[in-house]
Amino acid sequence: MNRREFILAGGALLAAGLSPKLIAASPTHNSVKDQDQTQALDQTQAPLKVLALVFDDYETLDLHGPIEMLGHLPSVDITLIGPKSIVRSYQGPRVVADRLLDEVVACDLLLVPGGMGTRKLVDDTRLLDWLRRQAKVSNKVFSVCTGAALLAKADLLDGVSATTNKMAYAWVTGLNDKVIWQPSARWVDDGRFLTSSGVSAGIDAALFYIAQTYGEAQARKIETLTEYRWNSDADKDPYAVIS
Amino acid sequence: MNRREFILAGGALLAAGLSPKLIAASPTHNSVKDQDQTQALDQTQAPLKVLALVFDDYETLDLHGPIEMLGHLPSVDITLIGPKSIVRSYQGPRVVADRLLDEVVACDLLLVPGGMGTRKLVDDTRLLDWLRRQAKVSNKVFSVCTGAALLAKADLLDGVSATTNKMAYAWVTGLNDKVIWQPSARWVDDGRFLTSSGVSAGIDAALFYIAQTYGEAQARKIETLTEYRWNSDADKDPYAVIS
Repeated sequence: MNRREFILAGGALLAAGLSPKLIAASPTHNSVKDQDQTQALDQTQAPLKVLALVFDDYETLDLHGPIEMLGHLPSVDITLIGPKSIVRSYQGPRVVADRLLDEVVACDLLLVPGGMGTRKLVDDTRLLDWLRRQAKVSNKVFSVCTGAALLAKADLLDGVSATTNKMAYAWVTGLNDKVIWQPSARWVDDGRFLTSSGVSAGIDAALFYIAQTYGEAQARKIETLTEYRWNSDADKDPYAVIS
Repeated sequence: MNRREFILAGGALLAAGLSPKLIAASPTHNSVKDQDQTQALDQTQAPLKVLALVFDDYETLDLHGPIEMLGHLPSVDITLIGPKSIVRSYQGPRVVADRLLDEVVACDLLLVPGGMGTRKLVDDTRLLDWLRRQAKVSNKVFSVCTGAALLAKADLLDGVSATTNKMAYAWVTGLNDKVIWQPSARWVDDGRFLTSSGVSAGIDAALFYIAQTYGEAQARKIETLTEYRWNSDADKDPYAVIS
């Protein structure tokens, strides 16, 4: 039973004391045929480990958009990590960091949001050093918006095809000319690095990651569950930079 | 100078020690012609006061989607209120409540997200009583997704045209038959009550509220800034319930 079915059942299972998370984690949810065989994770085993960086003046949706989509996977564990225990978004509301820098945490996906806070962090050697060490123990690194500025400044994207926020394109791309910057892309997937365009594009890239890892049917299921309209074509970038 | 111009300027103002929030709050940003004269707020005066309810197992994007959009208004103050100081989303990450129930806080907009947590809260008389008192000091009440279940159970929507999550439609609409439920609507605006469909629809309804209050140009500016594709027609509901 997926969350939709659970909801439609009127909460009977909740009333019975069963956790929807436990129900959702049932390995029966994703048939093998739904999965991209090249990268499919075995969902009967450990949950997908997502580690998300937070810092003061991070951009709200850069973080919470992908978390919304990833958070509906059948088995997932999302952890926030930051330089202090309580971190304030650019929009005001605060989140709690579950882990503190400079700890590194082995994970399947490292999520690096952007936001005004990156303007200072590109010169924060402690943060950049942590990013380099953390990237080594992350199966995949996913930046949203100006999160790519941090990856670029840490030299993680050298020789990698990548994109970033199109409103901040000149600033970000000026930080490192060894990156193969893409001026027109909703997101770019290049091996271990997935980089999205600005803010909302992170939601679309997160669904791409889900499709890539668990199969498109899983991504479409989550799209429906969240009543989203997925911009599923990475090449269609309404905010492309035209030089 | 708006945030886009600020970003494109490469952070020179930030380097000069000026706060982008202060810059953004300049009353020169919105010309009167951009505004809906019937409801325009005077942006040279107090910031828009947004109060958002949080509770355990709230749905991440129900809350943070609208906050993203509202948070880019030239002058805005967003406060979270909840039954305890640290609240966990359904997806895992935790937020900090700035104020605690049962305090009521006069505001321009009361945001009520949905999520699995509403299944218990519809029977929480303390919460429902607070909602009734809080609604009285809120110029407008905006629910996302199953947040409408709480408003309906508090009898706030009696005689009001409203919508909710289409995946949970039967459950929510079964809570109160005095509400004029709309099975096909991305959002419904009926006087003091704005109710959106599921999860992502809250982003679209938030942009509608911005357009209604500050003019469409302001909403379009924020749409661009966040590289979003606004589903701006409330009548186009890809997840409509067909009976």
